[in-house]
Amino acid sequence: MKKTIITISRQFGSGGRTVGHLIAEKLGIPFYDKELVEQIALESGFAPKFVEENGEHSPGRSILSYAFASTGVPGVMNGLSTADFLWSIQCSAILQLADKGPCVIVGRNADYILKDREDVLHIFVYADTEFRADRIVRLYGESEKSPVARLQEKDKRRSVNYQHYTGRTWGAPKNYDICINTGVIGIEEAADIVVDIVNRSK
Amino acid sequence: MKKTIITISRQFGSGGRTVGHLIAEKLGIPFYDKELVEQIALESGFAPKFVEENGEHSPGRSILSYAFASTGVPGVMNGLSTADFLWSIQCSAILQLADKGPCVIVGRNADYILKDREDVLHIFVYADTEFRADRIVRLYGESEKSPVARLQEKDKRRSVNYQHYTGRTWGAPKNYDICINTGVIGIEEAADIVVDIVNRSK
Repeated sequence: MKKTIITISRQFGSGGRTVGHLIAEKLGIPFYDKELVEQIALESGFAPKFVEENGEHSPGRSILSYAFASTGVPGVMNGLSTADFLWSIQCSAILQLADKGPCVIVGRNADYILKDREDVLHIFVYADTEFRADRIVRLYGESEKSPVARLQEKDKRRSVNYQHYTGRTWGAPKNYDICINTGVIGIEEAADIVVDIVNRSK
Repeated sequence: MKKTIITISRQFGSGGRTVGHLIAEKLGIPFYDKELVEQIALESGFAPKFVEENGEHSPGRSILSYAFASTGVPGVMNGLSTADFLWSIQCSAILQLADKGPCVIVGRNADYILKDREDVLHIFVYADTEFRADRIVRLYGESEKSPVARLQEKDKRRSVNYQHYTGRTWGAPKNYDICINTGVIGIEEAADIVVDIVNRSK
């Protein structure tokens, strides 16, 4: 089946977001990352910043239920944690985005949420630690933590979140249609590979 | 660096061997699979059939040491199991093959053995169970065991062997430069993707 929707899962610092952006640009289709967060926020009444900070982190941070009372969102008073609530509205938003038509969706466990659609191509982008550490320092600057510790922390969070909500192992090839090491293949080249696959699919 | 040597690791039934063969054909370079087994056999004095049966299986099958006495191969009397002996001569053969020049090597843990060469591209080929089960029945016919049981047994052996000799996890993306799901991408298309990567590498 023709693949018109692309999900990108990626290790922190691998350039997966850039790969996704390039694919969307080359194919002339919408790209959802912060835009998606904004849509989630609009639906939930949460501030975009809050969603961005919690959307891909490990679950378990509970926020007192009165925090939800002001949102007016139905269901949040029924014992749902913040993380579970975010997961629910993420699912719904991603399913709706996919229904709207061709697009690229980065992160947010979209590969799992759209696993039953045959028109979706699932990509995992990764790279070795040295490549990623060098890249995050170049892009985001130094911080108190070492780049390697930052990578480990972020990947761990994504992995725990993914496992918790999907029951699957983050980064296991069977969850994806192609996994690309950008440290070896290159970021631009990774995007070209995916665009070729999409264009050749029938 | 220009990638001139390609290693293919693959799930049983995924078509990885065919992908490797197509790549070699398209690039006009040697393809090693049974040929490699034969070379190993020539070096060891083992019968090709024996090597083929044991080369990728899980270690631990011990054969009485007198079985080696007739081979005249140095070292086999020093407590090496058959599997360990096969591993040693596989390493040596694969290192020599890579030194000879551009080629495609399928299986035999070649990705690990050649991990320190920068001119090598490492591929993992996989597919979902249904695609593989259907393919092995078409290619190899029915047998007493169900196709799914045959897949599980063969993959388990490859996985245990790989873990034992490399200390790494078989099929974990970080061991490869690209992982391709032939059930979705297609066998011919997988070969084209790899040929493009090789041709573009500098």
